[in-house]
Amino acid sequence: MAEAPGDIEQLIDLMARLPGLGPRSARRAVLLMLKKRGAVMAPLATVMAQVAVSARDCARCGNITNSELCEICRDERRATGELCVVEDVADLWALERGGAFKGRYHVLGGTLSALDAVGPDELRIPRLVERVAEEGITEVILALNATVDGQTTAHYIADVLTASGVSLTSLAQGVPIGGELDYLDDGTIGAALRARKRF
Amino acid sequence: MAEAPGDIEQLIDLMARLPGLGPRSARRAVLLMLKKRGAVMAPLATVMAQVAVSARDCARCGNITNSELCEICRDERRATGELCVVEDVADLWALERGGAFKGRYHVLGGTLSALDAVGPDELRIPRLVERVAEEGITEVILALNATVDGQTTAHYIADVLTASGVSLTSLAQGVPIGGELDYLDDGTIGAALRARKRF
Ligand SMILES: [Zn+2]
Ligand SMILES: [Zn+2]
Repeated sequence: MAEAPGDIEQLIDLMARLPGLGPRSARRAVLLMLKKRGAVMAPLATVMAQVAVSARDCARCGNITNSELCEICRDERRATGELCVVEDVADLWALERGGAFKGRYHVLGGTLSALDAVGPDELRIPRLVERVAEEGITEVILALNATVDGQTTAHYIADVLTASGVSLTSLAQGVPIGGELDYLDDGTIGAALRARKRF
Repeated sequence: MAEAPGDIEQLIDLMARLPGLGPRSARRAVLLMLKKRGAVMAPLATVMAQVAVSARDCARCGNITNSELCEICRDERRATGELCVVEDVADLWALERGGAFKGRYHVLGGTLSALDAVGPDELRIPRLVERVAEEGITEVILALNATVDGQTTAHYIADVLTASGVSLTSLAQGVPIGGELDYLDDGTIGAALRARKRF
């Protein structure tokens, strides 16, 4: 049995590792790329290679950026004293799409997890404690997912920050039990943010 | 509102054009790539750039290949006199996965469509007529999708090839009404092929 040439098989295998694409949809995606070599495949390869080199984590908040600091950390108008703690960059993007939050972020890079042996030092928790001390932060909004690991992480951070005297809040109404921020509509996220409650 | 850096937005936009990926899953795919820059993103960009340059249509059958002729056309054991006509390369791959067909293929590159102004010359129908005359073909299997356009195309090809005296068959039991070959399991495709009937 002969299928695709080796490099195309390799391309399909790599595409199939992306979330949302199984082997079948990876094949369809690759076939579409092959049909649109000039309009889709070549630019995609170019941009991807460029991003692979240029993208890095913001040295302050962990957001994705091409510079030392991300656009939000460079924007002085966002030094409001409010710091929104999220699990990952997808959640940061979701909050930015909502457009309701005017402060800055802190991207943990995951949640604490006994099962996966993720402790505070694997996340950006020590850096968060430093930032609260150094940046004149008055309020930390714990915008973690309403999952067990998300809430465990929120409680751990609340404990660690109690001594700092900073005000701790969390997203309130609108986040369903077990809900992940990135799957909520923008209006729901905005409402949850505006109605945030003391943690 | 600040979202991702420009090149990452561009990458998300290009990914969202692939079948099976909307804007949301494109963002998730890009974030996973950003997390796995070394293991996924860099190799993906490299292979994609390579395929964009090396992939071409087999000069004989229209299959995707890196050479003048595809692996199946280069394999003399597959000169069985049977020629299987499919709409696109996805269908060829589906039949190859089934493993039941030992002959060669002819990839039309689509179906006739009045709506999309696709006539016989936009497909590889003239080339099919030549091949039947030149390659000692005894049987043409019309393995087109069981859709209106697929069946219109099958009937058109049958008309065009009547004068050649070649035996015309089509896939039989197992292909559901409106069914697309690429979505069938391999066993079904094999059964349909073995039970093929005169067209
Ligand atoms: Zn930043
Ligand atoms: Zn070929």
